Amino acid sequence: MTAFDAITDQLAQQVIEVPSWAYGNSGTRFRVFGSPGTPRTVFEKLADAAQVNAYTGLAPKVALHYPWDKVDDWKALSDYAAEVGVELGTVNSNTFQDEDYKFGSLAHHDPAVRQKAIDHHLECLEIMDIIGSTDLKIWLADGTNYPGQGDIRRRQDWLADSLAKIYASLGADQRLVLEYKFFEPAFYHTDVPDWGTSFAHVSALGEKAFVCLDTGHHAPGTNIEFIVAQLLRLGKLGSFDFNSRFYADDDLIVGAADPFQLFRIMYEVRRGGGFEPDSGVAFMLDQCHNVEDKIPGQIRSVLNVQEMTARALLVDTVELEAAQTAGDVLGASAIFMDAFYTDVRGDLARWRESRGLPADPMKAFRESGYLAKIAEERVGGTQAGWGA
Amino acid sequence: MTAFDAITDQLAQQVIEVPSWAYGNSGTRFRVFGSPGTPRTVFEKLADAAQVNAYTGLAPKVALHYPWDKVDDWKALSDYAAEVGVELGTVNSNTFQDEDYKFGSLAHHDPAVRQKAIDHHLECLEIMDIIGSTDLKIWLADGTNYPGQGDIRRRQDWLADSLAKIYASLGADQRLVLEYKFFEPAFYHTDVPDWGTSFAHVSALGEKAFVCLDTGHHAPGTNIEFIVAQLLRLGKLGSFDFNSRFYADDDLIVGAADPFQLFRIMYEVRRGGGFEPDSGVAFMLDQCHNVEDKIPGQIRSVLNVQEMTARALLVDTVELEAAQTAGDVLGASAIFMDAFYTDVRGDLARWRESRGLPADPMKAFRESGYLAKIAEERVGGTQAGWGA
Amino acid sequence: MTAFDAITDQLAQQVIEVPSWAYGNSGTRFRVFGSPGTPRTVFEKLADAAQVNAYTGLAPKVALHYPWDKVDDWKALSDYAAEVGVELGTVNSNTFQDEDYKFGSLAHHDPAVRQKAIDHHLECLEIMDIIGSTDLKIWLADGTNYPGQGDIRRRQDWLADSLAKIYASLGADQRLVLEYKFFEPAFYHTDVPDWGTSFAHVSALGEKAFVCLDTGHHAPGTNIEFIVAQLLRLGKLGSFDFNSRFYADDDLIVGAADPFQLFRIMYEVRRGGGFEPDSGVAFMLDQCHNVEDKIPGQIRSVLNVQEMTARALLVDTVELEAAQTAGDVLGASAIFMDAFYTDVRGDLARWRESRGLPADPMKAFRESGYLAKIAEERVGGTQAGWGA
Amino acid sequence: MTAFDAITDQLAQQVIEVPSWAYGNSGTRFRVFGSPGTPRTVFEKLADAAQVNAYTGLAPKVALHYPWDKVDDWKALSDYAAEVGVELGTVNSNTFQDEDYKFGSLAHHDPAVRQKAIDHHLECLEIMDIIGSTDLKIWLADGTNYPGQGDIRRRQDWLADSLAKIYASLGADQRLVLEYKFFEPAFYHTDVPDWGTSFAHVSALGEKAFVCLDTGHHAPGTNIEFIVAQLLRLGKLGSFDFNSRFYADDDLIVGAADPFQLFRIMYEVRRGGGFEPDSGVAFMLDQCHNVEDKIPGQIRSVLNVQEMTARALLVDTVELEAAQTAGDVLGASAIFMDAFYTDVRGDLARWRESRGLPADPMKAFRESGYLAKIAEERVGGTQAGWGA
Repeated sequence: MTAFDAITDQLAQQVIEVPSWAYGNSGTRFRVFGSPGTPRTVFEKLADAAQVNAYTGLAPKVALHYPWDKVDDWKALSDYAAEVGVELGTVNSNTFQDEDYKFGSLAHHDPAVRQKAIDHHLECLEIMDIIGSTDLKIWLADGTNYPGQGDIRRRQDWLADSLAKIYASLGADQRLVLEYKFFEPAFYHTDVPDWGTSFAHVSALGEKAFVCLDTGHHAPGTNIEFIVAQLLRLGKLGSFDFNSRFYADDDLIVGAADPFQLFRIMYEVRRGGGFEPDSGVAFMLDQCHNVEDKIPGQIRSVLNVQEMTARALLVDTVELEAAQTAGDVLGASAIFMDAFYTDVRGDLARWRESRGLPADPMKAFRESGYLAKIAEERVGGTQAGWGA
Repeated sequence: MTAFDAITDQLAQQVIEVPSWAYGNSGTRFRVFGSPGTPRTVFEKLADAAQVNAYTGLAPKVALHYPWDKVDDWKALSDYAAEVGVELGTVNSNTFQDEDYKFGSLAHHDPAVRQKAIDHHLECLEIMDIIGSTDLKIWLADGTNYPGQGDIRRRQDWLADSLAKIYASLGADQRLVLEYKFFEPAFYHTDVPDWGTSFAHVSALGEKAFVCLDTGHHAPGTNIEFIVAQLLRLGKLGSFDFNSRFYADDDLIVGAADPFQLFRIMYEVRRGGGFEPDSGVAFMLDQCHNVEDKIPGQIRSVLNVQEMTARALLVDTVELEAAQTAGDVLGASAIFMDAFYTDVRGDLARWRESRGLPADPMKAFRESGYLAKIAEERVGGTQAGWGA
Repeated sequence: MTAFDAITDQLAQQVIEVPSWAYGNSGTRFRVFGSPGTPRTVFEKLADAAQVNAYTGLAPKVALHYPWDKVDDWKALSDYAAEVGVELGTVNSNTFQDEDYKFGSLAHHDPAVRQKAIDHHLECLEIMDIIGSTDLKIWLADGTNYPGQGDIRRRQDWLADSLAKIYASLGADQRLVLEYKFFEPAFYHTDVPDWGTSFAHVSALGEKAFVCLDTGHHAPGTNIEFIVAQLLRLGKLGSFDFNSRFYADDDLIVGAADPFQLFRIMYEVRRGGGFEPDSGVAFMLDQCHNVEDKIPGQIRSVLNVQEMTARALLVDTVELEAAQTAGDVLGASAIFMDAFYTDVRGDLARWRESRGLPADPMKAFRESGYLAKIAEERVGGTQAGWGA
Repeated sequence: MTAFDAITDQLAQQVIEVPSWAYGNSGTRFRVFGSPGTPRTVFEKLADAAQVNAYTGLAPKVALHYPWDKVDDWKALSDYAAEVGVELGTVNSNTFQDEDYKFGSLAHHDPAVRQKAIDHHLECLEIMDIIGSTDLKIWLADGTNYPGQGDIRRRQDWLADSLAKIYASLGADQRLVLEYKFFEPAFYHTDVPDWGTSFAHVSALGEKAFVCLDTGHHAPGTNIEFIVAQLLRLGKLGSFDFNSRFYADDDLIVGAADPFQLFRIMYEVRRGGGFEPDSGVAFMLDQCHNVEDKIPGQIRSVLNVQEMTARALLVDTVELEAAQTAGDVLGASAIFMDAFYTDVRGDLARWRESRGLPADPMKAFRESGYLAKIAEERVGGTQAGWGA
């Protein structure tokens, strides 16, 4: 059995959740460029997401954003998902686009606004009940732009209080996952800026509350794999939002900016048991395909995660531990790098084929004509947009 | 004569250019919040800008953004400006919002797009002729999001060629000012990322080409005042875009994030002769008032520049040089900090009053009722937006 | 009563702890420059530290570093401190200079090295018993330089185990304070890189364990005052190591690089009750005077902390809260900035004089001739060095 | 002919210059750990450096640091180099360890210190004449720690004047290469902080002056390969100092922290003609092996450069240009990434063997027993230290 053969069982279990919003248009504050065939409805988003899974076998779940993906009949949406071959996953709340949220939501100084934001989350929980989703993910845009604008301390207390009210409504199988973000859209302080803050809150809430780690939400130079290792150790890593960045929260294709970082992250996931079936870690993408085609952008992304997972699984941990324990810096580094530099693409292609999947999903999708088809079919209507 | 009295002549010459776009709505990619009374036309923007000058005496010029501020009759716009007490200043080109510019403009791989972008700048020059503006400011959104997406080297050559064609059309009194920006909206590389690149291009162009330094467009930790000193020394500092930031290009009120940095910048301006009448340095604001009121946000901004200019002018350079030459680190630092810590606000208020201006421009404007008036008057129509 | 009069009671309670190592030579990896009069013994360090207190009334405590400050007779050292007018404060352990610690100490892969490092801390506790010190501060240089070199996860477990053993030996009135640091001397990962990690460990240890926040130990752009607010809220802020930085861990004079940041930090200290007598927060300096004179460098530092504390105490919190609650961004900012821009130096000078202290401690010390005296007296012997 | 075969001619021409100081002990300001067998003399350094070349065929040149590598008889040193199979390369001046240089060297406020620093460089030129070295590399530690401490502007003028005096003494075949560095050992400003400053100076000097790009000397997030492309375009890239970093100037093994970045850099070198024989670009290492063995650390480093060069040479530029011109973002990215992900190690091993070199230089060196031999032989004497 080759080293690769030894890891295929683990690879076969990999599930990556794709975000419904990745299929809509996105951009920067300067400009959102549109593209032909962009979905006008959440149904069309699901149809596109299903393509990713069809070509890779990696992405059977689709995360929703509420109210972006609001429909009248949630059951019908769930049924449609099943029909196109996916299921609905994490529900992401959205408390940053209503006028009331200009100065915050769960940490707003006005109790009425906080209650409105709490109610929004309770509504999400109800939707989750209908569609069979277990995870409520909370990312807050709350924060301030100028020193003195808000009371940092009091906002923490308000936030804790709001979260407690939401937590109290969680169903038996539901989880609350709290995302942190360094900055943006707030420019002086954000109310959940780092993993420590999210950890402090979810620890106070209880065992159904976890941290979401978005790989793009850290200060320059932050060792993200350390945080992965730490959260797994503390039993509080709820989910990943994968993407990559050179500068701020660029939301580029995961692995595009620093493939070696993705490798190190996946290694710590493995090391901390995050790939175990009962780990409870959800692996999601959170990206914006501003200039590239969206569906192949998503296919590329899940393949990147798969390829780096394979490399991380190939690390010879027995030899590595021996070198580490011997204080052999260059030897340990060599074992670690050997896995990273191993070109797993050929093995993955063959294994994919053996499972009835295309050897080259990017090529197969490109040749399928799907993009041309939707460009022709989806004329008229309003294209869905990220952030809109 | 007090130390403050000794600097009022220099303060009296201070001119800060306010940007027309600061009066429209702005925000982040997540959300643009609107506010009552936001201008619907460039005429209303000028009316608002005129308020800033009326209360501070500091802002007699308004920079335009083309085509955001496009009008049929430029002469009429110029006349209107004079009517409300301001004049039109720098013209900022915009080659980042047309569909054609998705992959760049002056550095685009397609010669047709490059020509379109060149033509846009030639159009700007014609407008400048009509409105009597001397400065064409070029900020490029050109760049790529992924390694390999574009040819960095070739794009530099294309850019140089495009700039040369624009430069060749400059009138005798016209200047080309090239802004640089670290990142955003492009996330892997930008075609003019740093002062060195802008300097290399404007040096190649000739004596009518200069660098624009936007204080928010640098990597974390960059010593901006060093660049100010260097560009003044090289005779290539054309203009400032003032704003402040904690993280990326936050476009906050100048001086809000790091007042001491603004002081150091103004000191190097003084040290390098940038306040001299013939220095050719234009002092502009480039900010986004996402959550605060726009007109008072601008008033606050020009006052911040004035206050830090006053402090910078108060540095006792004779004593400072003596301490520096003596290798007296703490002594030199103390002289420098003494000026920064001097509270000039009282002196400035009294001096302002002596010139027929309100002692407290923020208070005077607030009490004027102008915001309520425009909120009432400007109903209907489409509010102007930054980036739209 | 003026606004300043209203805060003098609080100012009178301020205690800043100066570090013994600040009086020795320090530098970078490139070069340590010496200076005449540098202490050769810890007694001479205490004599120098006593000068800081004599001229400012702010620094009655001196933090030690063990084994740099090792003496045979700790009681004698303590007596000498009393004699020169100071007392001994926090004891800082040092597990980074022995050959055995090349690959770590409390988180080392070798149990024998871990035990040696634990024993070192137990020794510190014994010394604390003798000299009456309550705080054991642990800063770890532990970490790795290359991915794969060490097992991040296992090292956390080892660290937790080591800390638990030390914690178990704490006396009834003793505290363990765990410092975190982003990077250096390790360049890939450090075992306590951020406040979250320190918080997770001290929370697991118990109520006598706290976090130490060194203001220079964060990634670029980190909002430090947020961490201050959060740790105070969580009841886990044990102490500060004050210094300032433009880039990495520069260890410059506190307030020198970004005075406004220091103001914001002191404001959150006030806001979170950190100045209250029972807060348990220790305020220490941790700086390196590489190119400036050490004693006046320390005087300048404690004055900077005092001046920013005064400004922070001057914030009108009633008005501030009103503006915050009204969503008045510019109004709240103005109230906050007004305190920062208030020049408190004159009031502080007068108040100092009223308490029998020199109005200008820097000038008074300079004129005292102390530096010349020690330069003459302290000839021969080996000058003490930071990091040696 | 395989794709790899097509690039071996270019690979065969690769020359990497290793630094003499990499074989001495190095560390951080906290501690320099020693290791058995460390050279005591520059001759022993050359012997060690020769090992790197013997096992890789990549490193026939050794860069010197003066006065660290000072000898009485330079001719003898040069002869010894030839004897062990290497030649002497770039001479690095050192004006940061003498007491006189505490406040700078070529940019010092005291003309006497400036002259001393100039003379030091003239001395380097004389040594270069003897040993046949063509490149004088200048890295300045000049700068200040506190705002106001020095006059940034005047120091630029002094620097320009000092450089001009050195430049005037260059022999016909000699070059001056000016390195820039963001920060350290100075913490507020450095006198040559960025490529723009270095470029401005060397442009003013003339055609024998060039920029040295040290990959560790940039602000976080800087796109280094852009600078490579730009300097090659401007004809001013004189040399590289290779190393890698996660945070500041960590001086880790090149390619260790971000292999993809090294790939991108090597690609721009190729793209800009930097591998052409007449390019004039010198490829040097500048690293500190603080915790790993030095000789194998250097072998690993030159192999990393070779492996990434091979990958960069494998990029299919014809297809890449086609995809770029078509605006095919994902297609262009895929072509670029394909080369990066190609595992060239097997091909390189086979090619190495075909040239009489060991397939696995790391293993071959380890098994040679050289480290044990020098550990035994080199007892007594003072070990050479980086920075000492």
